[in-house]
Amino acid sequence: MIKKLCCLILFVSIGIIHAQTQDEKQLKKIYDLALTKGKAYDWLNYLSNQIGGRLSGSVQAEQAITYTKAELDSLGLDRVWLQPVMVPKWVRGTPEFAYIESKPGYTSNVPICALGGSVSTPPGGVKANVIEVRELSDLDKLGKEKIQGKIVFFNRPMDPTLLNTFQAYSGAVDQRSAGAAQAGKYGAVGVIVRSMNLKLDDYPHTGSTNYGDLPEAQKIPAAAISTNGAEFLSTTLKLDPNIQFYFKLNCKQLEDVPSFNVIGEIKGSSKPEEIMVVGGHLDSWDLGDGAHDDGAGCVQSMEVLRLLKLSGYIPKRTIRVVLFMNEENGLRGGRQYASDAQAKGEKHVFALESDAGGFTPRGFSFDSSESDFATLLEWKSLFEPYMVQEFTKGGGGADIGPLKKEGMVLAGLRPDTQRYFVHHHAENDTFEHVNRRELELGAAAMTSLIYLADTYQLGSVD
Amino acid sequence: MIKKLCCLILFVSIGIIHAQTQDEKQLKKIYDLALTKGKAYDWLNYLSNQIGGRLSGSVQAEQAITYTKAELDSLGLDRVWLQPVMVPKWVRGTPEFAYIESKPGYTSNVPICALGGSVSTPPGGVKANVIEVRELSDLDKLGKEKIQGKIVFFNRPMDPTLLNTFQAYSGAVDQRSAGAAQAGKYGAVGVIVRSMNLKLDDYPHTGSTNYGDLPEAQKIPAAAISTNGAEFLSTTLKLDPNIQFYFKLNCKQLEDVPSFNVIGEIKGSSKPEEIMVVGGHLDSWDLGDGAHDDGAGCVQSMEVLRLLKLSGYIPKRTIRVVLFMNEENGLRGGRQYASDAQAKGEKHVFALESDAGGFTPRGFSFDSSESDFATLLEWKSLFEPYMVQEFTKGGGGADIGPLKKEGMVLAGLRPDTQRYFVHHHAENDTFEHVNRRELELGAAAMTSLIYLADTYQLGSVD
Repeated sequence: MIKKLCCLILFVSIGIIHAQTQDEKQLKKIYDLALTKGKAYDWLNYLSNQIGGRLSGSVQAEQAITYTKAELDSLGLDRVWLQPVMVPKWVRGTPEFAYIESKPGYTSNVPICALGGSVSTPPGGVKANVIEVRELSDLDKLGKEKIQGKIVFFNRPMDPTLLNTFQAYSGAVDQRSAGAAQAGKYGAVGVIVRSMNLKLDDYPHTGSTNYGDLPEAQKIPAAAISTNGAEFLSTTLKLDPNIQFYFKLNCKQLEDVPSFNVIGEIKGSSKPEEIMVVGGHLDSWDLGDGAHDDGAGCVQSMEVLRLLKLSGYIPKRTIRVVLFMNEENGLRGGRQYASDAQAKGEKHVFALESDAGGFTPRGFSFDSSESDFATLLEWKSLFEPYMVQEFTKGGGGADIGPLKKEGMVLAGLRPDTQRYFVHHHAENDTFEHVNRRELELGAAAMTSLIYLADTYQLGSVD
Repeated sequence: MIKKLCCLILFVSIGIIHAQTQDEKQLKKIYDLALTKGKAYDWLNYLSNQIGGRLSGSVQAEQAITYTKAELDSLGLDRVWLQPVMVPKWVRGTPEFAYIESKPGYTSNVPICALGGSVSTPPGGVKANVIEVRELSDLDKLGKEKIQGKIVFFNRPMDPTLLNTFQAYSGAVDQRSAGAAQAGKYGAVGVIVRSMNLKLDDYPHTGSTNYGDLPEAQKIPAAAISTNGAEFLSTTLKLDPNIQFYFKLNCKQLEDVPSFNVIGEIKGSSKPEEIMVVGGHLDSWDLGDGAHDDGAGCVQSMEVLRLLKLSGYIPKRTIRVVLFMNEENGLRGGRQYASDAQAKGEKHVFALESDAGGFTPRGFSFDSSESDFATLLEWKSLFEPYMVQEFTKGGGGADIGPLKKEGMVLAGLRPDTQRYFVHHHAENDTFEHVNRRELELGAAAMTSLIYLADTYQLGSVD
């Protein structure tokens, strides 16, 4: 009996060692291909420099759909298609303009940009006194009397002591997303928000603002000011609280327009009905070329399917790349994809998103059951030679969020965060700030995770 | 008895928990200060943009000595001084020039730069046929017959599949450091080396070449060519092996000149005779402004002493910052520091160097005894909240290497390596490529390690 048991243990052990060696080999193959025969960087070059910023409903967004579909078509996948989705169309119009007027005729220009979704100012702009606040709740304390007729200036910086800059972003972004709605209720005539940027520089950073259920008449124009501009305005206000601020926005919310998610798949060899998604969002803000947010995530996701094929791996499950439209100002693509999947009764078991920039990958975050997370932690050692060490619990990503069901695993690539908010939603989110190797290492890490999740059938649907 | 034992365990446990909490608090304090009240970035701005490239023996190197000494003086350390050291003085002269001549009169310019230490070409330059090789050993196979009178073109790229780009550098740099000496022996008239850069771009990367004991007459001029230039030359040679290459170098090795290491220290409170060093090298190559290599390491090292003071920590041992001169082309500063320490009978127990760029810190490498390494591994968990996870065995750094003695611990900061060799020794090693937070995180990690090594008396001298 003991002999039999020993044999069994030996047999199982050899099996495990063999499998590990196989996985190690496959990961090495994936990484070598990504770093020597990668296409992600060239794709991103095209998306960034030949197309540029891809705001939902824009000509560039349409060009990006055509381009990425053509590129997916060239990969010899089993199926490539466009999934229709109606998206909001907000346009910035002619460039914004702002100045601080310390006394009549004494003006200093400051760099601003309209927040996405903002209404425009009246044609002559808005000029008013400024009240500086740090928190949304400051408005409740100040009350209508002190706010009415003024421009509210939200100036709480991101917390520099948080190591993960996404946490610092989360802790500050309520000013941008809800500031205008809140200030509008108290009769403010405009909102200026300090850019979500840990660096002091001259770039204003856009991003969505949301008026919620505010009646049309109470919607006030909202703009971001660069961090240097915010410091300048704040200092000026300390010297003289009665200075005036002028700004003019020319943006407009138009009717919804038709657009698409771009999808390609490799049909599963033994479990084609089980679907694993890998994706990023194809739309971006309009100020830069959207290289980090989220051109990087799109080309990495496309690269996952290309690397799987190139490495000769035959997936058991169906592996689908989805380039979601409209993450930035509506999430319509992610919602449409999930509702279509639901309507068709598709079984999604795993989804991975890359939407945190094309920087050196540090790990993944996972939204999964405890037992699946335990399995994931067992895989960690396979990633350690590639310096991908942080396996944490957390969300997968905005676009794949609506897909979530019991049993399913959502994952997000987690690159180094230190440089991300220098570029996020600003004019300097451009191709030259993406390092080829860092981008490729992200694609390799994602491909490796998809390979393992397919091989060991991680995730299920009840 | 059991009761007593339980009490003891409880007591010891509380002690450990208390100590850990204390360490956690101190590290948090250090990081918060580094990220909110850091000076490293401003110092680096000055070194890079007001002074610039600091080649040993240059006016800029002298300016950097004066500047950093003055800044250390302002920190209220117990002692700041300059340690004399004679350094080699090599000058580049007027810009280098090179072209490929496919037939008489048909020329294409390519970007080159002299390797540090190279002899110049004759005043009229060198023009000759080219023989492309990948390995030093290829020269032995080719022999004098095929090499004599030709320019040897070393074109083995760094291996892109190595995750740690320093390994890729080590695997390729023999071409630069020993290529000229080897080719000179076989009668070559010049050497062109592919730049040590994983990216394809137009910047030639300099760095030392070493003629060894080659007689003066056999020393041949050696230059680096940009990676794009190397690809161009290689393709041209495939089309026609008889093309000619012309290059002209105007560099010169002058007599040694006096210079200094810049040193500052906080005297130890209870063990002043035990010295811990933290440092980087103040000299740099001349093409860029040496922001990453190694301005970053210098300002981080200065910041360590500043942060220790600012945090209110009173070190037991003497903590010394050393800004070494002449790491790039002689290591004279490191050798001088070690020999002076030896002559004075100073007890150095620990040394930490930062000389791998100002990028996000990923860990440390250690040259220590097994038992000290075990202690270091115990500290790893303290660094994990700061995403400093790689504690590996390896060298500390070139400058602190000569200090090594039995019992002593040498450590090196290990930042993310992906971007380093894009900038290393090239015109684009400039301040704007250093991210403030990444630089500050490195300084915080270094300060934390010095704090722990002082608190727990890591390292000794037999």
